Amino acid sequence: MRTLQVDLGERSYPIYIGGGLLGRAGEFFEQHGLAKKSPVLIVTDDHVAPLYLDTVTKSLSEQGYRVVSKVVKAGEKSKSLEVFEDVMTAAIEGGLDRHSAVVALGGGVVGDLAGFVAASYMRGVSFVQMPTTILAHDSSVGGKVAVNHRLAKNMIGAFHQPKMVLYDVDSLQTLPIREVRAGLSEMVKHGLIWNAAFADWCRQHTADLLALDPEALGYGLTQGCSIKAQVVSVDEREQGLRAILNLGHTLGHALEAIGGYGEFLHGEAISIGMAAAAKLAVNRGRDLSIYEETVSVLKGFGLPTAMPQQHDEHAIIAAMMHDKKFKEQQLVFVLPVEIGKVEIVADVTLDEVRRVIAELKEEGQHV
Amino acid sequence: MRTLQVDLGERSYPIYIGGGLLGRAGEFFEQHGLAKKSPVLIVTDDHVAPLYLDTVTKSLSEQGYRVVSKVVKAGEKSKSLEVFEDVMTAAIEGGLDRHSAVVALGGGVVGDLAGFVAASYMRGVSFVQMPTTILAHDSSVGGKVAVNHRLAKNMIGAFHQPKMVLYDVDSLQTLPIREVRAGLSEMVKHGLIWNAAFADWCRQHTADLLALDPEALGYGLTQGCSIKAQVVSVDEREQGLRAILNLGHTLGHALEAIGGYGEFLHGEAISIGMAAAAKLAVNRGRDLSIYEETVSVLKGFGLPTAMPQQHDEHAIIAAMMHDKKFKEQQLVFVLPVEIGKVEIVADVTLDEVRRVIAELKEEGQHV
Repeated sequence: MRTLQVDLGERSYPIYIGGGLLGRAGEFFEQHGLAKKSPVLIVTDDHVAPLYLDTVTKSLSEQGYRVVSKVVKAGEKSKSLEVFEDVMTAAIEGGLDRHSAVVALGGGVVGDLAGFVAASYMRGVSFVQMPTTILAHDSSVGGKVAVNHRLAKNMIGAFHQPKMVLYDVDSLQTLPIREVRAGLSEMVKHGLIWNAAFADWCRQHTADLLALDPEALGYGLTQGCSIKAQVVSVDEREQGLRAILNLGHTLGHALEAIGGYGEFLHGEAISIGMAAAAKLAVNRGRDLSIYEETVSVLKGFGLPTAMPQQHDEHAIIAAMMHDKKFKEQQLVFVLPVEIGKVEIVADVTLDEVRRVIAELKEEGQHV
Repeated sequence: MRTLQVDLGERSYPIYIGGGLLGRAGEFFEQHGLAKKSPVLIVTDDHVAPLYLDTVTKSLSEQGYRVVSKVVKAGEKSKSLEVFEDVMTAAIEGGLDRHSAVVALGGGVVGDLAGFVAASYMRGVSFVQMPTTILAHDSSVGGKVAVNHRLAKNMIGAFHQPKMVLYDVDSLQTLPIREVRAGLSEMVKHGLIWNAAFADWCRQHTADLLALDPEALGYGLTQGCSIKAQVVSVDEREQGLRAILNLGHTLGHALEAIGGYGEFLHGEAISIGMAAAAKLAVNRGRDLSIYEETVSVLKGFGLPTAMPQQHDEHAIIAAMMHDKKFKEQQLVFVLPVEIGKVEIVADVTLDEVRRVIAELKEEGQHV
C-alpha cells in the first residue's frame, strides 16, 4: 500500500492506494476516528453496488459502524439536483447527524454527487472517497464537488475536502477498456502539466497500464494523485495555480456538452482538448515537437486527438462561451510551454480557436 | 450610520446600520471593490420587491453595475430546493461569473436562500446581505445559509460569509406589528445569553422599540448584531460557543415544524422556547427569578411565553427528535444560568421536557 498526504493545514488528509482496501474500510474508519454512534451513508451506483457495496458494508459493520446506503443510476444524469435531493432524503431517513460520514463508492459522478451531499447536509459532514475508476484518481483529490444544472456542467457545488481517500486498485480490474483509456487520459495530463519524466514514464508503460498491471497502475496513480495533491496544496480554491489542472478542459467541456454528455467520456474529450491546446501553443510560436509528443503519447493509449467531423465550429464555440472560463469575448486556456510545463493565458481569441478546430478536423481526415 | 466589524480573519466583513442605505448601495459596492464587469443578481421576494428593488437596482446601475434580479414568493416555502434551482437558472441566464455577487434583499428566508445560492453557484461567489426585517439582524450575521428539506428545516446548506451587510433601518418602518414583535424576540435573546445590561435596556425601551423609534432601533440592532458577531468570531462553525445562540431554539424549531411553518413566526416560537428553557433551568435548581424575568421581558413585547394548548406533548417531542440537536435519547438545550449568561447542557431527558411542556401549558390556562 502507498500513502500520500494532501497538505491543506487543518483540512489535510491521506490517500491510501493499494489492493484489498475496500475489505478493510472499517479498519481505516476506526483509525481515523470516524464516529461510531452516528450512521454512515454509502452512496454508490447500480454498476458498482453489485460488485463492492456488500464488501464495504460488511467491513464497516464488523467494526461496529451502522451503515445505510443509497444506490443511484450509473451515469452523468445522476449529477442532478433531483438525485441530490433523493440522497438527502436517504440521509435524513437514515438518521445521519452532524458526526456522520458520507462515503462515495464509485467513479467521478458518485464522488461529485456524494461530496456535495456531504458538503451541504446539515451545512457539512465528514466525507470519504472510495474511487473505483482510474479517472477518479483525479476527481477524488482536491475537494471539488458539484452537481450539474441543465444549462451547464458542475454549476452547483462546493469545495469540501474528504477525511481520506481509500483507493482500492483491485476495483479497477472490472473496468471496461474504454473507461481504462479515458481514465489514463487524466494520468497523462498530470505528466504533461507538471513532470516531463512522469509523462515519459506513461509513454514507456502504456502497454502495462492498459493491461492493468497492478505495479504499473499503483505507481502511475500514486504519481498522478501526488501531482494533483501538490497543485491543490498550493491553491485549494483555484485562485491561480490550480487552473493548470484544466489543460484540455476548455475545449473538452465544450465537446462533452455538445455531445450531450453521452458521446464522449470525459477523458476522451480532454484528450482532444489537450491536442488542441498543444496545437494552439504551436500556432503561438512554441516548438512543433510539443504538439507531436502530446499527440503521440495520447494516441499510444488509443485516445482521440483529432476533432470530430460531425460537430461544426459554431456549436463548439457556442458551448465554450457558456463555460466558467469565458470572459469578455476571450477564453482562458492552459497551454503547454514544453512537455511537463504549462502556462495560463487569458487572451485566446475566437479566431485562434476557429483555426485550431479547423486544423484538428483536418488531422481527422488523414487518419 | 453605525459600523460593526465581524472579525473572522480573511472572511471578516462590516455591518452598516442606518437610514437611507439602500439608496446608496452602489456606493458601498464600489467602496468594497465588487467587480463591475460581472453581473450582480438581486434575490428578493414579492413583498419586498415593490418597495425596494427599484431603489437598489437604480443605485447599483448608476454606479456602473449590471443588475439582474429574481423575485420569489414571500414565505418559508421559498426556502426549497425547487426555488433554489429557479434562482440558479436566473443566475446562469443572467450571465453571472465567478466574480459576480448575489444580493439578498429581504428577510431571513431570502437571506438563507440567496446565501446558499451564493455559496454554491460555481462553488461560491460573493454575497451581500440587505436585510429588511428586524429578525434578519440575527440571520444576516454569521454566515449560516440553507434551504429546507421537506422532512426538516435548514437541512441543506453551508457556512458562507457575506462581503458586507447593508442594514437600512428605514425599511423596517413598513413591517407589520406582528413581525416587529417577533423580530425583537431575537434581539432580547442576544441580551439574555450575553449581556444582562442590554437585556435590561430592551425591557426599559420596549415601547420605543415597538414604536420603531429610529434611535432605539439603531442602538438595539447594533447591540444585537454586535453580540452575534462576537459569538460567531469565536466559533464560526459551531464547534462550541456558537451553540449558545440556540437559546429557545430546541423547542422553538419543534413548534415551528408542528405548526407547519405557518402557525408561529420564528420569533414567537423561540419566545415560548426561551420561557421553556428558563423553566427547565429553574426545575434543575436555578433561581425562580430567572424564569420570572425572562417571561416578563418577553411579555412586555407582546410575545407568547405559554405552551399552546392545541399541540400535545407527543407531537412536540416527536418533532424535537428530528432536530439536529437530538442525540441518543437526550436533548441538547441552552439553559440560563442567570440573566445575561447561559450554559449548554446535553443531558436533558424526555421526562424533563414533558414536565416543562405540562407546566407551560398550565401557564397558558392562567392567562
